[in-house]
Amino acid sequence: MNPVKTGFELHRIRNLPLLSCSEERGPAGGGMRPDFGHVLHSVWSYLLGSANVSQIRVGFSETNVEKTLSFVNIAFDEFFNYPQPLLLCTMKHLVSFAPGPSQLYFTVPDHLRQALREGIPSMSHRSAAFEKIFAGASENLRELLNLPDNFSIFFCSSATEIWERIIQNLTAEHSVHLSTGAFGKRFYETALQLKRHAVLYEKAYGDGFTQAPDVPPTELIAITHNETSTGVTTPHEIIKALRLQHPQSIIAVDAVSSLPYPQFDFTTIDTLFFSVQKGFGLPAGLGVWIVNERCIEKEEQLRSTGQSTGTYHSLTSLLQHARKHQTPETPNVLGIYLLEKVTADMLRRGITAIRKETEYKAAVLYHALEQHQSIRPFVKTPALRSPTVIVAETSNLTDKLYTKLSEKGLLPGEGYGPLKASTLRFANFPAHSKEQFEKLADLISNG
Amino acid sequence: MNPVKTGFELHRIRNLPLLSCSEERGPAGGGMRPDFGHVLHSVWSYLLGSANVSQIRVGFSETNVEKTLSFVNIAFDEFFNYPQPLLLCTMKHLVSFAPGPSQLYFTVPDHLRQALREGIPSMSHRSAAFEKIFAGASENLRELLNLPDNFSIFFCSSATEIWERIIQNLTAEHSVHLSTGAFGKRFYETALQLKRHAVLYEKAYGDGFTQAPDVPPTELIAITHNETSTGVTTPHEIIKALRLQHPQSIIAVDAVSSLPYPQFDFTTIDTLFFSVQKGFGLPAGLGVWIVNERCIEKEEQLRSTGQSTGTYHSLTSLLQHARKHQTPETPNVLGIYLLEKVTADMLRRGITAIRKETEYKAAVLYHALEQHQSIRPFVKTPALRSPTVIVAETSNLTDKLYTKLSEKGLLPGEGYGPLKASTLRFANFPAHSKEQFEKLADLISNG
Repeated sequence: MNPVKTGFELHRIRNLPLLSCSEERGPAGGGMRPDFGHVLHSVWSYLLGSANVSQIRVGFSETNVEKTLSFVNIAFDEFFNYPQPLLLCTMKHLVSFAPGPSQLYFTVPDHLRQALREGIPSMSHRSAAFEKIFAGASENLRELLNLPDNFSIFFCSSATEIWERIIQNLTAEHSVHLSTGAFGKRFYETALQLKRHAVLYEKAYGDGFTQAPDVPPTELIAITHNETSTGVTTPHEIIKALRLQHPQSIIAVDAVSSLPYPQFDFTTIDTLFFSVQKGFGLPAGLGVWIVNERCIEKEEQLRSTGQSTGTYHSLTSLLQHARKHQTPETPNVLGIYLLEKVTADMLRRGITAIRKETEYKAAVLYHALEQHQSIRPFVKTPALRSPTVIVAETSNLTDKLYTKLSEKGLLPGEGYGPLKASTLRFANFPAHSKEQFEKLADLISNG
Repeated sequence: MNPVKTGFELHRIRNLPLLSCSEERGPAGGGMRPDFGHVLHSVWSYLLGSANVSQIRVGFSETNVEKTLSFVNIAFDEFFNYPQPLLLCTMKHLVSFAPGPSQLYFTVPDHLRQALREGIPSMSHRSAAFEKIFAGASENLRELLNLPDNFSIFFCSSATEIWERIIQNLTAEHSVHLSTGAFGKRFYETALQLKRHAVLYEKAYGDGFTQAPDVPPTELIAITHNETSTGVTTPHEIIKALRLQHPQSIIAVDAVSSLPYPQFDFTTIDTLFFSVQKGFGLPAGLGVWIVNERCIEKEEQLRSTGQSTGTYHSLTSLLQHARKHQTPETPNVLGIYLLEKVTADMLRRGITAIRKETEYKAAVLYHALEQHQSIRPFVKTPALRSPTVIVAETSNLTDKLYTKLSEKGLLPGEGYGPLKASTLRFANFPAHSKEQFEKLADLISNG
């Protein structure tokens, strides 16, 4: 015999939603009716899916909270057969400061749920509905980046892919690469793998370019704006100086872990790219490639000489499809949908506010690192310190600090490759709040 | 003055969950308390996110259901200020029979929600947790496809990408292509774009290969197992005959819209590929490339002669990373996670059951098409009819049938390119139920 009715009440305790449930009729001590689990699950799903909640506490009203369990471990039966009202309250999520894949932008879970409701994953990539999403994502990006009209926006699968496409489409023989870490070097290696004569200008880890090197004439100059492995930024003046040095060369800028923060001077850049799992706070699996008309012309010229510039992701093919707001292949439709939604959210927040917050958060953390007696910024020259990927030289305190921060729910990114034992990385993206950075700085300072 | 308490009751009407809510105390006609919306939203989110629900009806208990609104259009305020108990009941989702992106496998929404709870989108693609997901997806696929140990499994971004990678990695000069429609021809064109001497054996739309053509010696023979544009299958015997004709050539099979249904004879195939938004019922943005040791050796040999076989997605790079259960680039982590989950679900259901159901559903629909007085199967030769993409020659009834089926919640796929006006396509994937196919056949027969 099941109870006829199940009652719910909703309260808030210390700003956390709290739901209590009780049988209101039915035999004393009887089991909850089967539907109860269904509704309770729905409420939990919602709470757990929201940005700030990863665990639910389950307990009983007379003793307040008794047990803390992560959602997946909750045995429904154990609680449903308990005759007393049931209390739930929520615990905070862990926050990832890894530089990518990083913390999801806080609106993403809601957008994902909405995507399921709208049937986005079953949508045809040749439909008018998809074209609207493609156009929306492009327009939002154009506004957010303040991108001039002579640039086109294309969707690829990763920034790694775009390294390959840039070399294939924009060079016949030569490229020059400025590297301040592992990712700049991989762009150079990509050119070598495609049999180009590539020249590398490399700095030691932690160092960067305070003045533009004197590079030979070349078809393409590749610059990593923000080196994710080391937290070294390449100042805008370096890009400008190289443009002036070689006005005929294509200037390619890897903005993977800096956008949407920087305002680039697009008169000094011909092609720019990023992937969405960093500053845009989205699931990985989408790269954005931005090119101006000089790139389009260069690719046409290379094709006219008989060079293969690739197949479905040649600039010709990408442009031809982008004009119809389509992609050559079946793309990551869900990724493009989420990009449209998150860029709209960022526009509502305002790029100026995002920039100010980024700078505030960077200042707070760099200050804490500078003041610490044993920990310090890995990048010594202040002008070369990235605002968006902050690397701390933690020396023999690496494990201790990692554990301490993790226990407080703040997950640092590990150091990259050879820097793993001696550094920790902290992404400073729009998904990370000022409060989180203040807490991070406090914990580092008092440790 | 807000009411102190909000009550909920859950019922089922005709097997659909129905939630009623009421203020139990508080001023008559007063507004609902703010938290009410929070909980109600959570229940709606859950119901709407589940596989069978896309709309919620909102109404009032004394008049039963009064309004039908899609979730996004519901004005909370409008209903929250209404003093009477509120009723919600749910409506069924539309089912997509488009051949891809197609209907999501019914477990995908739950897996997506679980992914958010587990923080999958923020997971590092260099972590042990990711390696476990990669390994799980590979092992599940191996079991589902009954794939021998001499084959390796790699993750790319689309089948379109894999056309390019196959030509880049497995040919220096020559390829031969058997085409029964638009996608077979695009594979051939991919080879031309990469400057290979490609030879095309092409059939008219709706026709296919009943015996193997006599092809010249070549490095690679490309065969579309299931042509998504026309619904023509290439029988396994054709693949086998070509293998016997040219045992030295690499045999590449495009199984994009047929897997997981077919059991291939892997002694006759060297490389096989598919994308996940078709038979696997997943969101688009992931391609799976399967190769044997002959492919690995061929790529090594081409590299040793100085040929570029690409960069991050060369077979060397893919293999080197796959040995560690990793990808060269930051991949579509969520896509690989969902693939692992859905392949596990399919293994639990059993590939034999999936095959039998596929054959039953195909028989039901082809029978209805054959019996119809004005509609017929587009593919005339029964042995060439795809079990997984069923194309109906609807002639001047195309629009009428499309409208009729859509109104019943069954969305056909439009005909491809030049066949758009005269055909409709029906994907027969594991996400589509026997009941849906029976209903489809009934509606076609009685129309």
